[in-house]
Amino acid sequence: MMNLKEISKKIIRGDFSSLLGFDGSKKNVHPSEIARMLVSVPKEAALKAFRSLPTASQTKVFPYLDILLQKKIAKALTQPRAAYILNELSSDDRIAFYSLLKGVERSTFLELLNEKNRDAVHDILGYPDNSVARLINTEFATISTELTIAAACEHLRQYHKDTETANVIYVVDKDGKLIDDIPVRRFVLYDPHKKVADILDGFCVSLKMTDTKEDAVAKFKEYDRIVLPVTNEENILLGVLTVDDVLDAAEQRDTKEIQNFGGVEGLDYPYVKTAFFSLIKKRATWLIVLFVGEMLTATAMSYFDTEISKAVVLALFVPLIISSGGNSGSQAATLIIRAMALKELTIKDWWFVMRREVLSGLTLGLILGTIGFIRISIWQNLHLYDYGVHWFLLALTIFFSLIGIVMWGTLSGSMIPIVLKKCKLDPATSSAPLVATLVDVTGLVIYFTIAAIILKGTIL
Amino acid sequence: MMNLKEISKKIIRGDFSSLLGFDGSKKNVHPSEIARMLVSVPKEAALKAFRSLPTASQTKVFPYLDILLQKKIAKALTQPRAAYILNELSSDDRIAFYSLLKGVERSTFLELLNEKNRDAVHDILGYPDNSVARLINTEFATISTELTIAAACEHLRQYHKDTETANVIYVVDKDGKLIDDIPVRRFVLYDPHKKVADILDGFCVSLKMTDTKEDAVAKFKEYDRIVLPVTNEENILLGVLTVDDVLDAAEQRDTKEIQNFGGVEGLDYPYVKTAFFSLIKKRATWLIVLFVGEMLTATAMSYFDTEISKAVVLALFVPLIISSGGNSGSQAATLIIRAMALKELTIKDWWFVMRREVLSGLTLGLILGTIGFIRISIWQNLHLYDYGVHWFLLALTIFFSLIGIVMWGTLSGSMIPIVLKKCKLDPATSSAPLVATLVDVTGLVIYFTIAAIILKGTIL
Repeated sequence: MMNLKEISKKIIRGDFSSLLGFDGSKKNVHPSEIARMLVSVPKEAALKAFRSLPTASQTKVFPYLDILLQKKIAKALTQPRAAYILNELSSDDRIAFYSLLKGVERSTFLELLNEKNRDAVHDILGYPDNSVARLINTEFATISTELTIAAACEHLRQYHKDTETANVIYVVDKDGKLIDDIPVRRFVLYDPHKKVADILDGFCVSLKMTDTKEDAVAKFKEYDRIVLPVTNEENILLGVLTVDDVLDAAEQRDTKEIQNFGGVEGLDYPYVKTAFFSLIKKRATWLIVLFVGEMLTATAMSYFDTEISKAVVLALFVPLIISSGGNSGSQAATLIIRAMALKELTIKDWWFVMRREVLSGLTLGLILGTIGFIRISIWQNLHLYDYGVHWFLLALTIFFSLIGIVMWGTLSGSMIPIVLKKCKLDPATSSAPLVATLVDVTGLVIYFTIAAIILKGTIL
Repeated sequence: MMNLKEISKKIIRGDFSSLLGFDGSKKNVHPSEIARMLVSVPKEAALKAFRSLPTASQTKVFPYLDILLQKKIAKALTQPRAAYILNELSSDDRIAFYSLLKGVERSTFLELLNEKNRDAVHDILGYPDNSVARLINTEFATISTELTIAAACEHLRQYHKDTETANVIYVVDKDGKLIDDIPVRRFVLYDPHKKVADILDGFCVSLKMTDTKEDAVAKFKEYDRIVLPVTNEENILLGVLTVDDVLDAAEQRDTKEIQNFGGVEGLDYPYVKTAFFSLIKKRATWLIVLFVGEMLTATAMSYFDTEISKAVVLALFVPLIISSGGNSGSQAATLIIRAMALKELTIKDWWFVMRREVLSGLTLGLILGTIGFIRISIWQNLHLYDYGVHWFLLALTIFFSLIGIVMWGTLSGSMIPIVLKKCKLDPATSSAPLVATLVDVTGLVIYFTIAAIILKGTIL
């Protein structure tokens, strides 16, 4: 009836020989593998191949596709077919799809859902983007404490499908309030005549709908859990969250953090899937902000143009001096931002961080200052470059400037993220440009001020 | 008999009122909560509190402690007690402990293990740090295909403990070769008279012992699995890996990547737990490497000292120019390194990346160049600073230099990680300093060369 192999061979010119023999229904091909193939070929070809899959496979493959292809497919299919797929998705996959749609697109696709699903999606989209609610699966198995294990098993056989969410069974009271959770393995491992109440461990960790994804990551890690129940404020069980969805969330958080740190706005799609101009936009924004900030360096330097014209040699060390400030600042900022993201540090620890970083800055500044001093002495005495008769004073200027600038860089690098967090801003987003600009501009002022003090009356 | 509450109250002066009533054996306190309390108090107090726990709790709490406290405790306890705890740990927790020990310490503690455990630890420590082998749990439940579900359940009840690893049962042949995996829920959801062979789905993803942790993260994500079996080259089942251990591994990888990117050697412990001097050492190393690299900027600039003395105004723009190169370079490097870490890009895509980044660099350079040009024009015409009669030529110099430097920064930022990866070096570790130094030094050369061409005969 359906033969993806031949279609693939015809429409896709790549090497899909590994998929030979695959007819979309065979057990030994995982939906994610089909998805990977579809994502890697031109959209038109993928669409054609997707259409030719049997309906059951379409529903299984759909959640593994990227959002761009999902939209393309949902628009290209007949309305009833698209509606069928969207309604058949598991609730978390459905939310993931709708979460990434905006405005009109979202409402158009919402109309394809049946009333129950539409209401549920609507409900969950009311929670913030970063909340646990956006990741939950609303299909889960519940049971009451009075049943025997044998009866509970019978109940599960009748009412629950063989899906991942049936790995843990939830015990609720008659109002739907969560009492406890039982891994399904206990139904196998314990005597079937025991009551459910007897195999509870009385310990149940749960998440609230409004908890952030970071809270969830922390809780999964702390309690070594694989699934956690999610309740509302009244402790009524609304859904379950599996750790693999949190793995994605943690990875996305880290990717955003890394990209922000590199001075790029977080990308919505992977690098390879991001269109050229939207990539430029994401990069240009920060690059311009940084550029405009750095323009202050030209202004700062223009205040010292008489010093530079008197002692050109001072200009030679400008890049070295300011890059040292920038490097030590970004080291400190990285350490603090990451420690805050992993909840190892909070704003309250600012005093501990400050003392520590001032001391670190001093130590690191002394190290770099000494190297800088030695560098000038060697170059001078081996006649590699002539810094003039006052080379010793110049070397001292570099020594003290490096100490001052590294200390200043370390201090601002560590405090700016904390201040931003205190102001409810995302430290990862805003720290890099702030630290870079601040340290470069003030670094120049420190350098030329120290030079003015030490070199006054000799070369200045 | 044992009363942690009072001991805690006496020895720890913090506020642990939330733990009042806790006696270390009550069901509603999770071992990780006890561990969190112990980790947050001075080591001596923690040790005293740990000693006072009943043995069963000690074994449960131990894996949640950090390695520093684990070592302290293992050394302070009597040998038989320490040996008991280390032997009772689950195999993955045991490996985690021994993985973080070095040299003599490792061998001393190895002697406390019984022969079976010692051999197993020895075996696994033979695999690379970054391999899946280091994370596996060697306790797992196996079964053969001929049994009925009811008989299989009976078998599990007799031979397996109620632990997380019993969530998925493995079907192996008589040589121990992996045939398939069954989530234990199927034993509940299907008719007990069916045979195990009837409820297999014929689809089994597995990992090899030598796969990297990154491979494992990718596979868990791709197949939406919670546990994966781990085999050797002959497909013999040796252990299982749960996704929560991979969550930690992924987070550690990202932390290392972020720290490397910020120019810090990856820390072994959290920021707050790292001793002052080991923190200085981790930071000083890269800071010195970067500093020595950046010294080339002083050398590069010294070649242009006559140009600078003729036109001091050129020096004013040095920080702006080189920071633009650095920023665009680190943007490109961040995007490429992250995309490679997430396996979105491979070395083979270099030509795609190169074309794209040259074009991005050109576009971004044009944007910054135009802003720079406008900045000089405005300052000149509003008399904010006097760049002299040849200000227009100077503005042109800045314009073309920015285009050249941003293109160069983008190109090196994107290609250096790929080249490093090709040379089997870690792109995250080495890219930041290489890109920064290279772009700064060559940026100066580009700037002064363009200046020499455009300004020859006027101000130069």
